[in-house]
Amino acid sequence: MDWLHEIIDDKSRVITENIEEKYLSDTLGRLKGNASALVFVKSAEEVSGILKAASERHIPVTPRGAGTNLVGSTVPEDGGLILDFSLMNRVLELDEQTMTVTVEPGILLQELQNFVESKGLFYPPDPGEKLSTIGGNISTNAGGMRAVKYGVTRDYVRGLEVVLANGEIITAGGKNVKDASGLSLKNLFIGSEGTLCAITKCVLKLIPKPEFSKSALIAYPDLDSGISSVLSILRANANPTAVEFIARDVAKLGEDFSGVKYPRPDAGSYILLTFDGRRSEVEDSVNRIRELALDTGAMEYIPLDDPDYAADIWKVRGALVKAVEATSEQEPVDIVVPINKTAEFIRFVNSVEKETGVRMVSFGHAGDGNVHLCVVRGKRGDEEWKNALHGVMTKIYGKAYELGGITSGEHGIGISKREYFLRETHSENIAVMNRIKDALDPLHILNDKKSYIVSKG
Amino acid sequence: MDWLHEIIDDKSRVITENIEEKYLSDTLGRLKGNASALVFVKSAEEVSGILKAASERHIPVTPRGAGTNLVGSTVPEDGGLILDFSLMNRVLELDEQTMTVTVEPGILLQELQNFVESKGLFYPPDPGEKLSTIGGNISTNAGGMRAVKYGVTRDYVRGLEVVLANGEIITAGGKNVKDASGLSLKNLFIGSEGTLCAITKCVLKLIPKPEFSKSALIAYPDLDSGISSVLSILRANANPTAVEFIARDVAKLGEDFSGVKYPRPDAGSYILLTFDGRRSEVEDSVNRIRELALDTGAMEYIPLDDPDYAADIWKVRGALVKAVEATSEQEPVDIVVPINKTAEFIRFVNSVEKETGVRMVSFGHAGDGNVHLCVVRGKRGDEEWKNALHGVMTKIYGKAYELGGITSGEHGIGISKREYFLRETHSENIAVMNRIKDALDPLHILNDKKSYIVSKG
Repeated sequence: MDWLHEIIDDKSRVITENIEEKYLSDTLGRLKGNASALVFVKSAEEVSGILKAASERHIPVTPRGAGTNLVGSTVPEDGGLILDFSLMNRVLELDEQTMTVTVEPGILLQELQNFVESKGLFYPPDPGEKLSTIGGNISTNAGGMRAVKYGVTRDYVRGLEVVLANGEIITAGGKNVKDASGLSLKNLFIGSEGTLCAITKCVLKLIPKPEFSKSALIAYPDLDSGISSVLSILRANANPTAVEFIARDVAKLGEDFSGVKYPRPDAGSYILLTFDGRRSEVEDSVNRIRELALDTGAMEYIPLDDPDYAADIWKVRGALVKAVEATSEQEPVDIVVPINKTAEFIRFVNSVEKETGVRMVSFGHAGDGNVHLCVVRGKRGDEEWKNALHGVMTKIYGKAYELGGITSGEHGIGISKREYFLRETHSENIAVMNRIKDALDPLHILNDKKSYIVSKG
Repeated sequence: MDWLHEIIDDKSRVITENIEEKYLSDTLGRLKGNASALVFVKSAEEVSGILKAASERHIPVTPRGAGTNLVGSTVPEDGGLILDFSLMNRVLELDEQTMTVTVEPGILLQELQNFVESKGLFYPPDPGEKLSTIGGNISTNAGGMRAVKYGVTRDYVRGLEVVLANGEIITAGGKNVKDASGLSLKNLFIGSEGTLCAITKCVLKLIPKPEFSKSALIAYPDLDSGISSVLSILRANANPTAVEFIARDVAKLGEDFSGVKYPRPDAGSYILLTFDGRRSEVEDSVNRIRELALDTGAMEYIPLDDPDYAADIWKVRGALVKAVEATSEQEPVDIVVPINKTAEFIRFVNSVEKETGVRMVSFGHAGDGNVHLCVVRGKRGDEEWKNALHGVMTKIYGKAYELGGITSGEHGIGISKREYFLRETHSENIAVMNRIKDALDPLHILNDKKSYIVSKG
C-alpha cells in the first residue's frame, strides 16, 4: 500500500491493521465485510488520487459517512478500501444572499440544521437519524418527516462536487436555481448510493426559517378511517409539514418504552400532524383540519398547543423503532406505495402477520405513502429467522409492487433490499442502470454489487 | 420505407413528400433541417417499433411536440425521421386521491392546466408558451413565472414512460411520492432534450388549486435598487409565487406594444410580484412586502387588487418578447446566474450593449436569477448580424459562467446555444454526459449533435 501512503502521508489517517468492526458494517451491524485499509480522507484531491490509483489497481472502494445506513450500503463486501468522510465535515460557506450553504459531505445533519437555524435559515429535509452525514443523506436521497410539505434531500441539493471512479473531479450544479443545460448529472448522482461517485462537496438550498409551528393529534376509531382521512387532509389546502399515522397498538409500544401516554387510548389509530409557517397561516390550517377531521369520522381532535406536550407526543413517534428494538432484533423496511394504497398495504401486512406469526410493526409517513415496517425477530434462531424474514419480505415487496409501490423511500437498496428490488423491478430498468454504471465506472470499483448493480465479476 | 408503413398502416400519419416547413424547424424558423418522413405516432408501441427499426437501419430520429422550442431542438439536422407526438394528446387518468394526472406527451400545457383547474387541482409549472406540449416541457425541464414558489417541471414529474433508442419501453417512477430505489432514470430523462429517449407517457404531480391570489407592482428609482430588493423579498418568509423585474425602458417597449400604461413612468425599474394561497396567507404576505419595499428604497408600492388591472400589468410583461419582435428579429437568451449576481450580470449586459451597439432587452425571473435577453438584430444584414450576435453571445455567456451561472434555465441548449454551452462547460462534464449518451444510444439515433452531444459521426 505504498501508493496509498504516497497520497496520504499522515499515517494516522490510513488504518491497515485492526480495523474497528463498526467500519466493516452499517448501523445494524449484522452484515460484515473486510477491508485492507480504512482511509480518513480530507480533500477531493485525496479522494481523486485514491480512486485513480484504485481503478488502475482494480481495488474495490466503499465510501462511508457516519455509517448510519440500514441496508448495508457501507459494508465493504469485496474488501479493498473504505473511504471515510468524517473528517471532511466543515461548513465551507454560508451564502445568505443566495440562501445556500456549501458543506463538506461528512458534516452531520444535526450540525448542519443547528448551524443554519442559528442564522435564521432552515434546511428542511429531516430524516430520523440526525447523526447521519449530509453526504450519506444525498447518497440515499433521504426523506424524513417533513417531506410532505418540503420534499426530500434531492429537492435541496443545488450542486455537488464528486469524484468519479477514474479520479475525475466533477462539479454538477452550483448556486443557480434553474437548470436546463445538458443532462442533469447532479440528479443522477443523488440517490446513487456511492455506486457512481464519491461526494466531496455539497451546495444545499436553504429557506427562511418558519416562524411558528403547531402540532395536533387526531384520534380515529380504527386504522382505516385514520389513514383514509389523510387523503382529504392533503386535499384541503392546509399544507401540513408532517402527517404520520400510528396504529393504537403501535402507540402502546412507544408509550411503554418512553413513559409518555397518548390521549384517547380507546382510539384505533392516530394521525399526528405538524403545521409550520407564519402564525396566521398555521392557525388557519389548524382550524381547517380540525373541522375536516371531525366531519370525516375522527373521534377527537387534540391540539398540542403546549410545546412540551407536543414534543412528548412526537417523542413517542420518534422512539418507535427503538421501542421495537428494546424487545427484539428487527429488520427495517421503508416501502413506498401511492398514498391512496397505504391502507390496503397495511391491511395486507396485518394479514401476513396473522398468517405467518411474524410480528410486523407498521407506522410512518402517511402523507407520502412511505410505510415503515419493523419485522420483528422475536426468539427465532438464526435459520428460522432467515427463512421467516425471507418469507414475509417476499410477500410484502410483491404486494407493494402490485399496488404500484417501490422498494425504498429513503433507506436505499444497499445489500439487504437488493434481492427484492432486483426481483420486482423491470429487467429493462435494471439493465439501463447497469449501462450507466458501466459507462461511469467500467471496472466496478465503487460500491460494487450494491443496489441495482449486476456485477461483471 | 416499407418497414415504416408496416409499423403504421394508416398512410395519413406517414408523410414522406412535401413535408411542411414548420416541421423542419422550431418556433423561430431560422434553422432548417430535412427529413425523409414525418410520422404522427399514436402509441408507445409504434414509437418502440420505429426506434428499433431506425436503430437497426442507422436512421436519425427527431422527436417533436408542438415545435415551440427556441433553440433548434426539433430541427432534424441529420435528416431521417421526425416523430410528431401531437396526436398523443389524451388525458389518460386523473387520480384525485394521489393528486396525479397521467397524460400523453402531446397534450398542450394550456389544455392540461385548464383541465386540472376545472377539477380544483393545479399544475404549477407555467412556462410562457402555453401552446407547448408537456412532453416538450419535460424534455427541456421548462420553468416559467411560478418557479420561485413552486419549482420547475422536474418537480412535478412523478413518472415517465419512455422509449429508448433501441425500442425498449421503460417506465421510470410512477405515482409514488418518495423514491430511493436505484438510480433515478426519471431525473436523467427530464431535461435530456430528446437525446436519450422519446417520452410516451407522463405522470404529473398536482396540488390543490390556490384559493386566492394578488399581484403588486413596486416602482424603484433605478435597476440596481429594484433587483437588489429581490434578495430581501425572498428572505422575508412571504413566499411569493412570481418575482419579475422590468427596467423602465423595457416596460415602455411593452406599453407601446400592448397599449397598457404602467404607473410611475418616472421609475427606473419595477418588480412585479404575485402571491397565491389562502386569503389570510396572501394578505399577510402582501402587507409584509409592502413594508419591506418601502423600507428598502422603493418609490411606491402599487397594489394590483383589481384583477383586470393586474391582468393588464401582467399582459405587458407577458408580451415583452412579442413587443421586441414587432420591431425586429431577436435571439432569445435565458441565462441563469446565482440570484445575487443578477444585477451585476445585467450591468454587464448593458455595458456590452453600449460597447457594441447591439441592443439587448433584458427582463425576467428575478426570483430565480433567470435573465431573459432579447438580442435585437435591427437592420443588420445576414453576415453582419451573424458576427454581431456571435460577438455579444460570446461575451455574455463568458460573463455568466464567470459569475457562476449557466447557459439555460428553461429553453435548453439545442443547436443555437450549443457552441457556448460546450465552450463554457468543463470538458469532464461534457465527457460524462457523452458516456451516458453512448451507453443509452450507442448509434446516436436520437436527436444527435444537439445540446451536449459530441457526435461520433
